[in-house]
Amino acid sequence: MDQSFAVIGGGSWATAIVKMLSENQKTIHWFMRNTDALEHIRTQGHNPNYLSSVEFHTEQLELTADINVAVAAADVLIFVIPSAFLESSMAALHTSLEGKIIFSAIKGIVPESGLIVGEHFNQRYGIPLDNIGVITGPCHAEEVALERLSYLTVACADEAKAEMLAKNLECDYIKTKISDDIIGTEYAAMLKNIYAIAAGIAHGLGYGDNFQSVLMSNAIREMKRFINRVHKMKRNINNSAYLGDLLVTGYSIFSRNRMFGNMIGKGYTVKSAMMEMNMVAEGYYAAKSAYLLGEKHQKKSKAPILDAVYEVLYEHKNPKKVFKKLTEKLD
Amino acid sequence: MDQSFAVIGGGSWATAIVKMLSENQKTIHWFMRNTDALEHIRTQGHNPNYLSSVEFHTEQLELTADINVAVAAADVLIFVIPSAFLESSMAALHTSLEGKIIFSAIKGIVPESGLIVGEHFNQRYGIPLDNIGVITGPCHAEEVALERLSYLTVACADEAKAEMLAKNLECDYIKTKISDDIIGTEYAAMLKNIYAIAAGIAHGLGYGDNFQSVLMSNAIREMKRFINRVHKMKRNINNSAYLGDLLVTGYSIFSRNRMFGNMIGKGYTVKSAMMEMNMVAEGYYAAKSAYLLGEKHQKKSKAPILDAVYEVLYEHKNPKKVFKKLTEKLD
Repeated sequence: MDQSFAVIGGGSWATAIVKMLSENQKTIHWFMRNTDALEHIRTQGHNPNYLSSVEFHTEQLELTADINVAVAAADVLIFVIPSAFLESSMAALHTSLEGKIIFSAIKGIVPESGLIVGEHFNQRYGIPLDNIGVITGPCHAEEVALERLSYLTVACADEAKAEMLAKNLECDYIKTKISDDIIGTEYAAMLKNIYAIAAGIAHGLGYGDNFQSVLMSNAIREMKRFINRVHKMKRNINNSAYLGDLLVTGYSIFSRNRMFGNMIGKGYTVKSAMMEMNMVAEGYYAAKSAYLLGEKHQKKSKAPILDAVYEVLYEHKNPKKVFKKLTEKLD
Repeated sequence: MDQSFAVIGGGSWATAIVKMLSENQKTIHWFMRNTDALEHIRTQGHNPNYLSSVEFHTEQLELTADINVAVAAADVLIFVIPSAFLESSMAALHTSLEGKIIFSAIKGIVPESGLIVGEHFNQRYGIPLDNIGVITGPCHAEEVALERLSYLTVACADEAKAEMLAKNLECDYIKTKISDDIIGTEYAAMLKNIYAIAAGIAHGLGYGDNFQSVLMSNAIREMKRFINRVHKMKRNINNSAYLGDLLVTGYSIFSRNRMFGNMIGKGYTVKSAMMEMNMVAEGYYAAKSAYLLGEKHQKKSKAPILDAVYEVLYEHKNPKKVFKKLTEKLD
């Protein structure tokens, strides 16, 4: 059976995913809230706000500003909106999700539930775990726009569904791999944003490349401990979906999270950095959720980098002092 | 007992090591072949060719252009010359190495023996393994010059000797860790240069950051397989001495090896890239030695990145085609 696909979201990663699907599918249903952008895509064939160089064949796109229309039309729903805005978008939904296959390409924790997106769909909307999957990088959307070779991991407990979506994303410039570790890949995608903030703070404070490599080497070990505590299974943390994703974000000067951290390291307050950036740094919310999640576990895994980011962002401690203390804990 | 130290070599990493030692020792014996540079250091207090911003207190330095003088004067010899030139420097040595503790801060394989430096000193000069150690990064010498926080790993089968040297390198801007894995850390330091060449080739060919992160994620897994095949022991490949060292080189735009690879990727021949750079890219020699070493093992470990670099550098295959094939083997 041929599936039909809906992409929920209008940002750069959503735009990149629509581009990949359009290499394989005749029709893609595409929901976004921004009606101006939507009208622009409909008439001009490209998204005015994100990856505007990407030209779409508009006859392939079923654009809508009503989430219900997109959800009703498709079997496979790909959610690509910042986790902080997921619930406000879902509030408009009165179409049933029964029988839908839901993939999350969202990196982060839903603030209302404190859950990663897959768990959130399972617990809040009763979607069976077999119908929930994750699309993860390492992948900057900007390079998809340029058709530069990128590798995606598609995770789902039901391997056939992961395979199905992977086939629909694959093309000349996209290679895919499937995984059954939906929990681990999603936590990795969330945690890496926190480590990118840490990398940014360190850079802002004047630490150099030598320290950055030590930070990343400690971060991947911390990530492994954290994910093992949440969901123990056999996984190679050095696979692209975990280590690769950490590196592409932690080393990117374009990463919003790294940029946000950099401003904090340079002395901006959290509030002024956010205002200045005029964007959501998902790692900001993730740091709180991950910290609280760590606290919940009786035997918390050692997570000095996460703790340091939390102290700087939420306890307003002096970044210079916090990172000085952190350097004593790394090796 | 207080040890006396000699640094053998006059390049940037040698200069950085002398700087660290001078934070802890009253006197450092320093051998280099370049008598002009030596005279400049003696009169002006800084190395004219490498890390020239570093100011030495000349009364701390016992400078000599005769390797025998330096070797005779010290208990601990730190070798910091490109592995390709080790044997030509050693040719002048007629002072006994008996009882000396030898640390290698050389990254590479000695072309004459096909051995890593520690093994070479053991087999060629009969130094007992307990007296042989390794100093490894992740560490750009340039950042030591700037006194930016850096972490070193000092490895020796005899823990007390590793501890002794570590203490003499440690200072405000240097943290150290000791290890008993001299073979593994030295192979890692050698292999990372090959992976940096691979990163450079990929960049030169137009691959982007998404691919780079996948390449590094595959490289660390390949490095783990390779080192396990050569010397199996319990080690965490994500420690700074392995993964950190790979990252600081693979992501550095200043790395000679990455730069060399970049030129190859952009279409330079091996010969013209070498002439243009006027420097030794140690990964060039390492690629051959590591490839041959791999061949020697009955059951060769899967090493597609190493194989690709070897094919480009030594079989003069088309980098574009070789890397296209490589992308099929990565995940």
